[in-house]
Amino acid sequence: DHDGVTTLTLNRPAQFNALSEELLAELQAALDAIAADDSVRAVVIAGAGKAFCAGHDLKEMRAEPSLDYYQKLFAQCTQVMLAIQKLPVPVIARVHGIATAAGCQLVAMCDLAVAARDARFAVSGVNLGLFCSTPSVALSRNLSRKAAFEMLVTGGFISADEAQAKGLVNRIAEAEQLDAEVAKLVASIVAKPRVALEMGKALFYRQLEKGIAAAYDDAGQTMACNMMDESALEGVQAFIDKRPPRWGQPH
Amino acid sequence: DHDGVTTLTLNRPAQFNALSEELLAELQAALDAIAADDSVRAVVIAGAGKAFCAGHDLKEMRAEPSLDYYQKLFAQCTQVMLAIQKLPVPVIARVHGIATAAGCQLVAMCDLAVAARDARFAVSGVNLGLFCSTPSVALSRNLSRKAAFEMLVTGGFISADEAQAKGLVNRIAEAEQLDAEVAKLVASIVAKPRVALEMGKALFYRQLEKGIAAAYDDAGQTMACNMMDESALEGVQAFIDKRPPRWGQPH
Amino acid sequence: DHDGVTTLTLNRPAQFNALSEELLAELQAALDAIAADDSVRAVVIAGAGKAFCAGHDLKEMRAEPSLDYYQKLFAQCTQVMLAIQKLPVPVIARVHGIATAAGCQLVAMCDLAVAARDARFAVSGVNLGLFCSTPSVALSRNLSRKAAFEMLVTGGFISADEAQAKGLVNRIAEAEQLDAEVAKLVASIVAKPRVALEMGKALFYRQLEKGIAAAYDDAGQTMACNMMDESALEGVQAFIDKRPPRWGQPH
Repeated sequence: DHDGVTTLTLNRPAQFNALSEELLAELQAALDAIAADDSVRAVVIAGAGKAFCAGHDLKEMRAEPSLDYYQKLFAQCTQVMLAIQKLPVPVIARVHGIATAAGCQLVAMCDLAVAARDARFAVSGVNLGLFCSTPSVALSRNLSRKAAFEMLVTGGFISADEAQAKGLVNRIAEAEQLDAEVAKLVASIVAKPRVALEMGKALFYRQLEKGIAAAYDDAGQTMACNMMDESALEGVQAFIDKRPPRWGQPH
Repeated sequence: DHDGVTTLTLNRPAQFNALSEELLAELQAALDAIAADDSVRAVVIAGAGKAFCAGHDLKEMRAEPSLDYYQKLFAQCTQVMLAIQKLPVPVIARVHGIATAAGCQLVAMCDLAVAARDARFAVSGVNLGLFCSTPSVALSRNLSRKAAFEMLVTGGFISADEAQAKGLVNRIAEAEQLDAEVAKLVASIVAKPRVALEMGKALFYRQLEKGIAAAYDDAGQTMACNMMDESALEGVQAFIDKRPPRWGQPH
Repeated sequence: DHDGVTTLTLNRPAQFNALSEELLAELQAALDAIAADDSVRAVVIAGAGKAFCAGHDLKEMRAEPSLDYYQKLFAQCTQVMLAIQKLPVPVIARVHGIATAAGCQLVAMCDLAVAARDARFAVSGVNLGLFCSTPSVALSRNLSRKAAFEMLVTGGFISADEAQAKGLVNRIAEAEQLDAEVAKLVASIVAKPRVALEMGKALFYRQLEKGIAAAYDDAGQTMACNMMDESALEGVQAFIDKRPPRWGQPH
């Protein structure tokens, strides 16, 4: 878009932005392009029309009932989900309407999420006899264990307020203020040097999978490298001098 | 019981349902029988009398002061606790009165928990000089770290409202509505195909112990297998056709 | 201090108790001494002056811009942080004013935290281009993933109420009641036998890093050993006899 912010809009509004193979491939291509583009500073994922995302495209799924096809489909979806986490810049879900099944997973996999107050969230596959197993990976890393399990076995919706209380979204805004609230988060992010966020985001997810001693080793190395970058040396010097940092564009 | 719901009622009300060796053995036998019975769709664990469960039977414990005995006792209790998690159907704790020490652990180990508003929870062994080490395993996988640590070192009670806010219970009901609230959860569960819940529950706990990439591999395989089951194929087709799924009994 | 409570007061008020190399070395020495002193039953970490702790000493850091120096500095800080967790007695953060960057990390690494209502918390390094990588290790083990990530990339403050809701602090008190609230927690801790807390705290952090089956094995062994200690045998007997336990001083 502009100012280093790229908005990826899921654009199958008549299908509530269901993640068809084609849409997943488009998302993957867009994420790959962003990963290679140093001018991008933040990504927003949004949905066109009435909903954020209703999960997989069930018509497409039902049309090819083979184990091999389903394995490939879920592997393709997983690759997209993990690409969000591997991206060197923060990714924000902008959620309105419903976010269900893999759509709810998409919210959970984004680094941050801002929801309209009337947004609703569910992992509803179980209502059709299909337990949301891949969404459970993301959901159980955002919510407490019992809260995630309840959503997964009941298939019921939770409100945006509940989603915030449980840890699935960071911020809530009235529908007409949703873009402004997302813009506030984006503005805060793009004001920071890119290298600090890139090193920090990668470290954040790496250390979560380690024991605490190994996590600290990794974090200490990362932070020492970060401190040696000219943007950090300048930022710390500016703090000492009580002046704004002189960071070039892009940093 | 009926309709595929089995209620296990801890029935030593004069001892606040303390988990004697005998009661633990009965629980283990009941859980083993349920694991082998395809007609069971959900399990409720409840307590007779004034309390849910007051933990281990301290008189029995004190009467045999040997390391060997205590090792065997805690191993027996652990086997029961893990059997709940390994059960192919969801297990709901129906909590009233007090749930203390291993009784609080029992709530934490159930997949879901519904509590009466006046229920209270504590890991109170530390008050007697016995830190609730085995309960801490379950508690620290439900609550945030500092909240769990505080309960473990103070031995103090928390209310049902606090337990819900901290993640130990899913739902709260007035005492006279407790069974109705449990019944709502059960009704939601038995409306889903058994195979989806069985595959999903096992995957849920497996993936929690893996790194995110390995968790997704496992979840993708599980979900592909689940999708190939006739109940999921029918459920998804019914959704496309905008009709209720035609699932036989039992599914 | 007295009654087995040791208060460590960060005492560089003009620098908002910034963690200089010298202060870190003093903290390490104090923690090492406490670890070797059986008369200590609980530790309180507090800050002199207007703030709890503002993190690293940025002037000192900026004065020696070498990778080797930063690696050693963060390793020194990590050693202090882990020493808190390894201490055989509970450690309580008494937080007033601000707790930022490594100061916020210090709160997260304490076993328990009590905050004044007007205390504020941030991991603000990113504002200077230095992502709080080592604080993220502690923060992400206290808060949910998205809440931690938001603090780390925005660098913004959260209030004491928010910190409590998110899991960073246990209790909040009006400023003039802060010491009284800390004293309540301390009183509860020192009323318990030392051996139970020592075995329990060590087990608590060990089992968090294990799968649930291995965690239970460890916990069962720990609890059996704890039960064989004379303080637990006496405590349980006293409970059966409906009398207070006769624990000597120190126990």
